[in-house]
Amino acid sequence: MTDHLHRDLEKVKEHVLAMGGLAEDALRFARSALISGDSGGLADLRTIEPRIDQIQLTIDDEIIKLLALHQPVASDLRFATAAMKIVNDLERIGDLASTIGCRLETIAGEPQLNLPLQLVPMMEKAARMLKKALNAFVTLDSDLARSVLEDDDEVDALNRQHFETLVAYMKLAPESIDVAVSLLSISRSVERIADMATNIAEDVVFVVDARDIRHPGLQRGRVF
Amino acid sequence: MTDHLHRDLEKVKEHVLAMGGLAEDALRFARSALISGDSGGLADLRTIEPRIDQIQLTIDDEIIKLLALHQPVASDLRFATAAMKIVNDLERIGDLASTIGCRLETIAGEPQLNLPLQLVPMMEKAARMLKKALNAFVTLDSDLARSVLEDDDEVDALNRQHFETLVAYMKLAPESIDVAVSLLSISRSVERIADMATNIAEDVVFVVDARDIRHPGLQRGRVF
Repeated sequence: MTDHLHRDLEKVKEHVLAMGGLAEDALRFARSALISGDSGGLADLRTIEPRIDQIQLTIDDEIIKLLALHQPVASDLRFATAAMKIVNDLERIGDLASTIGCRLETIAGEPQLNLPLQLVPMMEKAARMLKKALNAFVTLDSDLARSVLEDDDEVDALNRQHFETLVAYMKLAPESIDVAVSLLSISRSVERIADMATNIAEDVVFVVDARDIRHPGLQRGRVF
Repeated sequence: MTDHLHRDLEKVKEHVLAMGGLAEDALRFARSALISGDSGGLADLRTIEPRIDQIQLTIDDEIIKLLALHQPVASDLRFATAAMKIVNDLERIGDLASTIGCRLETIAGEPQLNLPLQLVPMMEKAARMLKKALNAFVTLDSDLARSVLEDDDEVDALNRQHFETLVAYMKLAPESIDVAVSLLSISRSVERIADMATNIAEDVVFVVDARDIRHPGLQRGRVF
Protein backbone atom coordinates (compact mmCIF):
# COMPACT_ATOMS: atom_id res chain seq x y z
CA MET A 1 0.00 0.00 0.00
CA THR A 2 2.66 2.49 1.05
CA ASP A 3 4.73 1.68 -2.02
CA HIS A 4 1.74 2.31 -4.23
CA LEU A 5 1.09 5.59 -2.44
CA HIS A 6 4.67 6.70 -2.95
CA ARG A 7 4.65 5.65 -6.58
CA ASP A 8 1.48 7.74 -7.11
CA LEU A 9 2.88 10.71 -5.19
CA GLU A 10 6.03 10.48 -7.32
CA LYS A 11 3.86 10.53 -10.44
CA VAL A 12 2.03 13.65 -9.22
CA LYS A 13 5.38 15.29 -8.50
CA GLU A 14 6.65 14.52 -12.02
CA HIS A 15 3.48 15.89 -13.58
CA VAL A 16 3.59 19.06 -11.48
CA LEU A 17 7.16 19.52 -12.69
CA ALA A 18 6.11 18.98 -16.31
CA MET A 19 3.41 21.62 -15.79
CA GLY A 20 5.97 23.90 -14.12
CA GLY A 21 8.24 23.39 -17.14
CA LEU A 22 5.44 24.58 -19.42
CA ALA A 23 4.87 27.64 -17.21
CA GLU A 24 8.61 28.36 -17.46
CA ASP A 25 8.41 27.98 -21.26
CA ALA A 26 5.53 30.46 -21.32
CA LEU A 27 7.62 33.01 -19.43
CA ARG A 28 10.58 32.41 -21.75
CA PHE A 29 8.47 32.92 -24.87
CA ALA A 30 6.91 36.07 -23.37
CA ARG A 31 10.40 37.41 -22.60
CA SER A 32 11.62 36.71 -26.16
CA ALA A 33 8.57 38.42 -27.62
CA LEU A 34 9.10 41.41 -25.34
CA ILE A 35 12.74 41.73 -26.41
CA SER A 36 12.35 41.08 -30.12
CA GLY A 37 8.94 42.67 -30.60
CA ASP A 38 8.19 40.04 -33.25
CA SER A 39 5.29 37.68 -33.32
CA GLY A 40 7.21 34.36 -33.51
CA GLY A 41 7.46 34.09 -29.72
CA LEU A 42 3.79 34.99 -29.42
CA ALA A 43 2.76 32.08 -31.65
CA ASP A 44 4.79 29.73 -29.40
CA LEU A 45 3.20 31.32 -26.32
CA ARG A 46 -0.33 30.69 -27.62
CA THR A 47 0.32 26.94 -27.84
CA ILE A 48 1.26 26.70 -24.15
CA GLU A 49 -1.88 27.75 -22.25
CA PRO A 50 -4.20 24.92 -23.42
CA ARG A 51 -1.45 22.39 -22.61
CA ILE A 52 -1.11 23.86 -19.11
CA ASP A 53 -4.89 23.73 -18.62
CA GLN A 54 -5.00 20.13 -19.81
CA ILE A 55 -2.31 19.04 -17.36
CA GLN A 56 -4.14 20.85 -14.55
CA LEU A 57 -7.26 18.73 -15.14
CA THR A 58 -5.18 15.55 -15.22
CA ILE A 59 -3.20 16.27 -12.05
CA ASP A 60 -6.25 17.37 -10.06
CA ASP A 61 -7.90 14.11 -11.05
CA GLU A 62 -4.80 12.10 -10.03
CA ILE A 63 -4.71 13.80 -6.63
CA ILE A 64 -8.40 13.14 -5.91
CA LYS A 65 -7.91 9.47 -6.84
CA LEU A 66 -4.77 9.22 -4.73
CA LEU A 67 -6.55 10.69 -1.69
CA ALA A 68 -9.48 8.28 -2.11
CA LEU A 69 -7.33 5.22 -2.74
CA HIS A 70 -4.42 5.62 -0.33
CA GLN A 71 -5.79 8.01 2.30
CA PRO A 72 -2.38 9.51 3.04
CA VAL A 73 -1.61 11.23 6.34
CA ALA A 74 1.05 13.62 7.71
CA SER A 75 3.60 14.85 5.17
CA ASP A 76 2.13 12.74 2.34
CA LEU A 77 -1.26 14.38 2.90
CA ARG A 78 0.33 17.83 3.08
CA PHE A 79 2.18 17.06 -0.15
CA ALA A 80 -1.02 16.04 -1.94
CA THR A 81 -3.04 19.09 -0.85
CA ALA A 82 -0.12 21.46 -1.51
CA ALA A 83 0.28 19.97 -5.01
CA MET A 84 -3.37 20.81 -5.67
CA LYS A 85 -2.74 24.44 -4.73
CA ILE A 86 0.51 24.59 -6.71
CA VAL A 87 -1.28 23.32 -9.81
CA ASN A 88 -3.77 26.17 -9.37
CA ASP A 89 -0.96 28.72 -9.18
CA LEU A 90 0.79 27.28 -12.25
CA GLU A 91 -2.44 27.50 -14.22
CA ARG A 92 -2.71 31.15 -13.18
CA ILE A 93 0.86 31.74 -14.40
CA GLY A 94 -0.20 30.30 -17.77
CA ASP A 95 -3.14 32.75 -17.84
CA LEU A 96 -0.97 35.69 -16.91
CA ALA A 97 1.68 34.83 -19.54
CA SER A 98 -1.15 34.66 -22.02
CA THR A 99 -2.39 38.12 -20.97
CA ILE A 100 1.16 39.43 -21.48
CA GLY A 101 1.11 37.87 -24.96
CA CYS A 102 -2.16 39.64 -25.84
CA ARG A 103 -0.76 42.98 -24.68
CA LEU A 104 2.46 42.48 -26.66
CA GLU A 105 0.38 41.68 -29.71
CA THR A 106 -1.56 44.94 -29.28
CA ILE A 107 1.59 47.05 -29.20
CA ALA A 108 3.60 45.14 -31.83
CA GLY A 109 4.83 47.60 -34.44
CA GLU A 110 4.21 50.63 -32.20
CA PRO A 111 7.26 52.81 -31.50
CA GLN A 112 9.02 51.81 -28.27
CA LEU A 113 8.87 54.29 -25.41
CA ASN A 114 12.21 55.75 -24.48
CA LEU A 115 11.83 55.07 -20.78
CA PRO A 116 14.08 53.49 -18.14
CA LEU A 117 11.72 50.54 -17.57
CA GLN A 118 13.11 47.27 -16.34
CA LEU A 119 10.48 44.92 -17.69
CA VAL A 120 12.93 42.33 -19.03
CA PRO A 121 14.96 42.08 -15.79
CA MET A 122 11.69 42.01 -13.85
CA MET A 123 10.41 39.13 -15.99
CA GLU A 124 13.73 37.31 -15.56
CA LYS A 125 13.50 37.80 -11.81
CA ALA A 126 9.97 36.34 -11.74
CA ALA A 127 11.14 33.40 -13.89
CA ARG A 128 14.04 32.74 -11.47
CA MET A 129 11.61 32.82 -8.55
CA LEU A 130 9.45 30.23 -10.28
CA LYS A 131 12.47 28.03 -11.03
CA LYS A 132 13.60 28.27 -7.41
CA ALA A 133 10.11 27.48 -6.08
CA LEU A 134 9.85 24.43 -8.37
CA ASN A 135 13.34 23.25 -7.36
CA ALA A 136 12.36 23.66 -3.71
CA PHE A 137 9.28 21.54 -4.44
CA VAL A 138 11.33 18.73 -6.05
CA THR A 139 14.03 18.65 -3.40
CA LEU A 140 11.64 19.54 -0.54
CA ASP A 141 14.06 22.27 0.53
CA SER A 142 12.24 24.74 2.76
CA ASP A 143 15.23 27.11 3.06
CA LEU A 144 15.32 27.49 -0.71
CA ALA A 145 11.55 28.04 -0.66
CA ARG A 146 11.84 30.74 1.99
CA SER A 147 14.42 32.59 -0.12
CA VAL A 148 11.78 33.04 -2.84
CA LEU A 149 9.71 35.15 -0.44
CA GLU A 150 12.49 37.75 -0.17
CA ASP A 151 12.74 38.12 -3.96
CA ASP A 152 9.08 39.07 -4.16
CA ASP A 153 9.70 42.46 -2.53
CA GLU A 154 12.07 43.46 -5.36
CA VAL A 155 9.50 42.60 -8.00
CA ASP A 156 6.81 44.55 -6.13
CA ALA A 157 9.14 47.57 -5.95
CA LEU A 158 9.86 47.40 -9.70
CA ASN A 159 6.13 47.24 -10.44
CA ARG A 160 5.46 50.34 -8.33
CA GLN A 161 8.34 52.14 -10.05
CA HIS A 162 7.01 51.21 -13.51
CA PHE A 163 3.56 52.41 -12.53
CA GLU A 164 4.83 55.85 -11.54
CA THR A 165 7.11 56.20 -14.57
CA LEU A 166 4.41 55.17 -17.03
CA VAL A 167 1.66 57.35 -15.55
CA ALA A 168 4.00 60.37 -15.52
CA TYR A 169 4.98 59.69 -19.15
CA MET A 170 1.35 59.37 -20.31
CA LYS A 171 0.71 62.88 -19.01
CA LEU A 172 3.67 64.28 -20.95
CA ALA A 173 3.03 62.30 -24.12
CA PRO A 174 -0.67 61.45 -24.50
CA GLU A 175 0.05 59.91 -27.92
CA SER A 176 1.86 57.13 -26.02
CA ILE A 177 -1.17 56.22 -23.89
CA ASP A 178 -2.08 52.99 -25.73
CA VAL A 179 1.45 51.60 -25.43
CA ALA A 180 1.87 52.82 -21.85
CA VAL A 181 -1.42 51.24 -20.71
CA SER A 182 -0.30 47.93 -22.23
CA LEU A 183 3.07 48.16 -20.48
CA LEU A 184 1.28 48.88 -17.18
CA SER A 185 -0.72 45.69 -17.67
CA ILE A 186 2.41 43.68 -18.52
CA SER A 187 4.24 44.95 -15.43
CA ARG A 188 1.24 44.13 -13.24
CA SER A 189 1.00 40.61 -14.76
CA VAL A 190 4.69 39.94 -14.09
CA GLU A 191 4.20 41.12 -10.51
CA ARG A 192 1.30 38.65 -10.17
CA ILE A 193 3.46 35.83 -11.62
CA ALA A 194 6.00 36.55 -8.88
CA ASP A 195 3.14 36.35 -6.34
CA MET A 196 2.20 32.92 -7.70
CA ALA A 197 5.85 31.75 -7.37
CA THR A 198 5.70 33.02 -3.78
CA ASN A 199 2.51 31.05 -3.13
CA ILE A 200 4.22 27.90 -4.44
CA ALA A 201 7.18 28.53 -2.14
CA GLU A 202 4.84 28.97 0.85
CA ASP A 203 3.19 25.66 -0.01
CA VAL A 204 6.59 23.93 -0.07
CA VAL A 205 7.35 25.28 3.43
CA PHE A 206 3.98 23.90 4.55
CA VAL A 207 4.81 20.43 3.16
CA VAL A 208 8.31 20.28 4.66
CA ASP A 209 8.01 22.16 7.97
CA ALA A 210 4.27 21.57 8.60
CA ARG A 211 3.98 25.33 9.12
CA ASP A 212 1.56 27.61 7.33
CA ILE A 213 3.58 30.80 6.74
CA ARG A 214 0.96 32.66 4.69
CA HIS A 215 -0.28 35.96 6.08
CA PRO A 216 2.61 36.65 8.49
CA GLY A 217 1.46 38.74 11.43
CA LEU A 218 -1.81 36.88 11.86
CA GLN A 219 -2.23 34.71 14.91
CA ARG A 220 -2.30 31.00 14.18
CA GLY A 221 -5.19 29.38 15.95
CA ARG A 222 -8.91 29.10 16.08
CA VAL A 223 -11.22 31.95 15.19
CA PHE A 224 -14.47 30.10 15.75
CA MET B 1 -17.20 7.56 12.14
CA THR B 2 -19.52 8.73 9.38
CA ASP B 3 -21.44 10.95 11.78
CA HIS B 4 -18.20 12.56 12.91
CA LEU B 5 -17.19 13.07 9.29
CA HIS B 6 -20.48 14.74 8.47
CA ARG B 7 -20.33 16.92 11.56
CA ASP B 8 -16.85 18.07 10.52
CA LEU B 9 -17.89 18.64 6.91
CA GLU B 10 -20.86 20.66 8.18
CA LYS B 11 -18.46 22.76 10.27
CA VAL B 12 -16.26 23.41 7.21
CA LYS B 13 -19.35 24.41 5.24
CA GLU B 14 -20.43 26.86 7.96
CA HIS B 15 -16.98 28.39 8.10
CA VAL B 16 -16.73 28.72 4.31
CA LEU B 17 -20.07 30.51 4.45
CA ALA B 18 -18.83 32.82 7.21
CA MET B 19 -15.78 33.58 5.06
CA GLY B 20 -18.06 34.10 2.05
CA GLY B 21 -20.16 36.49 4.15
CA LEU B 22 -17.03 38.54 4.88
CA ALA B 23 -16.13 38.60 1.17
CA GLU B 24 -19.67 39.85 0.47
CA ASP B 25 -19.25 42.53 3.17
CA ALA B 26 -16.01 43.61 1.51
CA LEU B 27 -17.79 44.05 -1.82
CA ARG B 28 -20.63 45.96 -0.15
CA PHE B 29 -18.21 48.35 1.58
CA ALA B 30 -16.29 48.85 -1.68
CA ARG B 31 -19.57 49.64 -3.47
CA SER B 32 -20.60 52.18 -0.79
CA ALA B 33 -17.20 53.85 -0.97
CA LEU B 34 -17.42 54.00 -4.77
CA ILE B 35 -20.87 55.62 -4.63
CA SER B 36 -20.30 58.05 -1.77
CA GLY B 37 -16.64 58.82 -2.43
CA ASP B 38 -16.14 59.17 1.33
CA SER B 39 -13.65 57.30 3.43
CA GLY B 40 -16.05 55.72 5.98
CA GLY B 41 -16.65 52.67 3.81
CA LEU B 42 -12.90 52.38 3.20
CA ALA B 43 -12.19 52.17 6.94
CA ASP B 44 -14.74 49.31 7.19
CA LEU B 45 -13.17 47.63 4.16
CA ARG B 46 -9.71 47.69 5.73
CA THR B 47 -10.92 45.68 8.73
CA ILE B 48 -12.19 42.82 6.54
CA GLU B 49 -9.09 41.49 4.78
CA PRO B 50 -7.19 40.29 7.89
CA ARG B 51 -10.36 38.56 9.10
CA ILE B 52 -10.74 36.80 5.76
CA ASP B 53 -7.07 35.72 5.87
CA GLN B 54 -7.46 34.42 9.41
CA ILE B 55 -10.49 32.30 8.49
CA GLN B 56 -8.60 30.93 5.48
CA LEU B 57 -5.84 29.59 7.75
CA THR B 58 -8.41 28.04 10.09
CA ILE B 59 -10.48 26.35 7.38
CA ASP B 60 -7.45 24.98 5.52
CA ASP B 61 -6.30 23.50 8.81
CA GLU B 62 -9.73 21.98 9.48
CA ILE B 63 -9.82 20.39 6.02
CA ILE B 64 -6.36 18.83 6.35
CA LYS B 65 -7.37 17.39 9.76
CA LEU B 66 -10.67 16.12 8.38
CA LEU B 67 -8.90 14.37 5.47
CA ALA B 68 -6.39 12.74 7.83
CA LEU B 69 -8.94 11.70 10.44
CA HIS B 70 -11.95 10.57 8.37
CA GLN B 71 -10.42 9.75 4.99
CA PRO B 72 -13.57 10.68 3.08
CA VAL B 73 -14.30 9.29 -0.39
CA ALA B 74 -16.63 10.12 -3.30
CA SER B 75 -18.75 13.25 -2.86
CA ASP B 76 -17.42 13.92 0.65
CA LEU B 77 -13.86 13.93 -0.70
CA ARG B 78 -14.87 16.16 -3.60
CA PHE B 79 -16.56 18.50 -1.13
CA ALA B 80 -13.43 18.73 1.04
CA THR B 81 -11.04 19.42 -1.85
CA ALA B 82 -13.47 21.85 -3.49
CA ALA B 83 -13.83 23.72 -0.18
CA MET B 84 -10.05 24.13 -0.13
CA LYS B 85 -10.15 25.74 -3.59
CA ILE B 86 -13.17 27.89 -2.71
CA VAL B 87 -11.37 29.22 0.35
CA ASN B 88 -8.49 30.23 -1.93
CA ASP B 89 -10.85 32.09 -4.25
CA LEU B 90 -12.57 33.87 -1.35
CA GLU B 91 -9.20 35.01 -0.03
CA ARG B 92 -8.42 36.40 -3.47
CA ILE B 93 -11.74 38.28 -3.46
CA GLY B 94 -10.66 39.84 -0.15
CA ASP B 95 -7.37 40.91 -1.77
CA LEU B 96 -9.11 42.34 -4.82
CA ALA B 97 -11.63 44.27 -2.71
CA SER B 98 -8.68 45.65 -0.80
CA THR B 99 -6.99 46.73 -4.06
CA ILE B 100 -10.23 48.50 -5.02
CA GLY B 101 -10.17 50.24 -1.63
CA CYS B 102 -6.59 51.48 -2.21
CA ARG B 103 -7.52 52.84 -5.63
CA LEU B 104 -10.60 54.59 -4.25
CA GLU B 105 -8.44 56.15 -1.56
CA THR B 106 -6.04 57.48 -4.22
CA ILE B 107 -8.80 59.20 -6.15
CA ALA B 108 -10.90 60.41 -3.17
CA GLY B 109 -11.51 64.14 -3.55
CA GLU B 110 -10.57 64.16 -7.25
CA PRO B 111 -13.27 65.42 -9.62
CA GLN B 112 -15.41 62.58 -11.01
CA LEU B 113 -15.10 61.85 -14.71
CA ASN B 114 -18.23 62.58 -16.69
CA LEU B 115 -18.24 59.22 -18.44
CA PRO B 116 -20.92 56.57 -19.03
CA LEU B 117 -19.13 53.96 -16.92
CA GLN B 118 -21.13 51.23 -15.24
CA LEU B 119 -18.81 50.44 -12.36
CA VAL B 120 -21.52 50.29 -9.70
CA PRO B 121 -23.84 47.95 -11.69
CA MET B 122 -20.77 45.87 -12.61
CA MET B 123 -19.82 45.57 -8.94
CA GLU B 124 -23.40 44.66 -8.05
CA LYS B 125 -23.40 42.01 -10.76
CA ALA B 126 -20.17 40.50 -9.40
CA ALA B 127 -21.64 40.57 -5.86
CA ARG B 128 -24.77 38.77 -7.09
CA MET B 129 -22.60 36.14 -8.81
CA LEU B 130 -20.76 35.56 -5.54
CA LYS B 131 -24.02 35.28 -3.59
CA LYS B 132 -25.40 32.80 -6.13
CA ALA B 133 -22.19 30.73 -6.10
CA LEU B 134 -22.26 30.61 -2.27
CA ASN B 135 -25.95 29.66 -2.26
CA ALA B 136 -25.23 26.92 -4.78
CA PHE B 137 -22.47 25.70 -2.44
CA VAL B 138 -24.82 25.57 0.60
CA THR B 139 -27.69 23.91 -1.22
CA LEU B 140 -25.43 21.84 -3.53
CA ASP B 141 -27.43 23.07 -6.50
CA SER B 142 -25.43 22.55 -9.68
CA ASP B 143 -28.01 24.25 -11.94
CA LEU B 144 -27.73 27.41 -9.87
CA ALA B 145 -23.94 27.09 -10.04
CA ARG B 146 -24.00 26.75 -13.82
CA SER B 147 -26.07 29.93 -14.14
CA VAL B 148 -23.18 31.87 -12.57
CA LEU B 149 -21.00 30.98 -15.55
CA GLU B 150 -23.32 32.80 -17.95
CA ASP B 151 -23.23 36.00 -15.89
CA ASP B 152 -19.45 36.14 -16.21
CA ASP B 153 -19.62 37.04 -19.91
CA GLU B 154 -21.58 40.22 -19.10
CA VAL B 155 -18.99 41.34 -16.58
CA ASP B 156 -16.16 40.64 -19.06
CA ALA B 157 -17.98 42.72 -21.69
CA LEU B 158 -18.43 45.63 -19.27
CA ASN B 159 -14.73 45.50 -18.40
CA ARG B 160 -13.71 45.66 -22.07
CA GLN B 161 -16.11 48.55 -22.61
CA HIS B 162 -14.71 50.47 -19.61
CA PHE B 163 -11.19 49.86 -20.89
CA GLU B 164 -11.95 51.40 -24.28
CA THR B 165 -13.90 54.33 -22.84
CA LEU B 166 -11.22 55.19 -20.29
CA VAL B 167 -8.28 54.92 -22.68
CA ALA B 168 -10.08 57.11 -25.23
CA TYR B 169 -10.88 59.66 -22.51
CA MET B 170 -7.29 59.79 -21.26
CA LYS B 171 -6.18 60.83 -24.74
CA LEU B 172 -8.72 63.66 -24.84
CA ALA B 173 -8.16 64.81 -21.27
CA PRO B 174 -4.62 63.99 -20.09
CA GLU B 175 -5.32 65.81 -16.81
CA SER B 176 -7.69 62.94 -15.97
CA ILE B 177 -5.03 60.24 -16.36
CA ASP B 178 -4.53 59.55 -12.63
CA VAL B 179 -8.23 59.04 -12.02
CA ALA B 180 -8.74 57.07 -15.25
CA VAL B 181 -5.84 54.69 -14.47
CA SER B 182 -7.36 54.04 -11.03
CA LEU B 183 -10.78 53.37 -12.57
CA LEU B 184 -9.15 50.97 -15.06
CA SER B 185 -7.67 49.07 -12.12
CA ILE B 186 -11.01 49.01 -10.27
CA SER B 187 -12.84 47.68 -13.33
CA ARG B 188 -10.20 45.00 -13.82
CA SER B 189 -10.42 43.99 -10.12
CA VAL B 190 -14.21 43.66 -10.32
CA GLU B 191 -13.82 41.53 -13.43
CA ARG B 192 -11.39 39.27 -11.50
CA ILE B 193 -13.85 39.04 -8.57
CA ALA B 194 -16.46 37.77 -11.05
CA ASP B 195 -13.87 35.22 -12.26
CA MET B 196 -13.41 34.01 -8.68
CA ALA B 197 -17.19 33.64 -8.26
CA THR B 198 -17.14 31.62 -11.49
CA ASN B 199 -14.36 29.39 -10.12
CA ILE B 200 -16.45 28.77 -6.99
CA ALA B 201 -19.45 27.84 -9.14
CA GLU B 202 -17.30 25.42 -11.18
CA ASP B 203 -16.16 23.80 -7.94
CA VAL B 204 -19.78 23.35 -6.83
CA VAL B 205 -20.59 21.57 -10.12
CA PHE B 206 -17.58 19.32 -9.49
CA VAL B 207 -18.86 18.41 -6.00
CA VAL B 208 -22.44 17.73 -7.10
CA ASP B 209 -22.10 16.26 -10.60
CA ALA B 210 -18.57 14.80 -10.25
CA ARG B 211 -17.72 16.67 -13.48
CA ASP B 212 -14.81 19.04 -13.92
CA ILE B 213 -16.24 21.77 -16.19
CA ARG B 214 -13.21 24.07 -16.13
CA HIS B 215 -11.56 24.81 -19.48
CA PRO B 216 -14.47 23.86 -21.75
CA GLY B 217 -13.24 22.65 -25.11
CA LEU B 218 -10.34 20.66 -23.70
CA GLN B 219 -10.54 16.91 -23.90
CA ARG B 220 -11.02 15.20 -20.58
CA GLY B 221 -8.56 12.37 -20.23
CA ARG B 222 -4.97 11.49 -19.76
CA VAL B 223 -2.18 13.52 -21.23
CA PHE B 224 0.69 11.42 -19.89
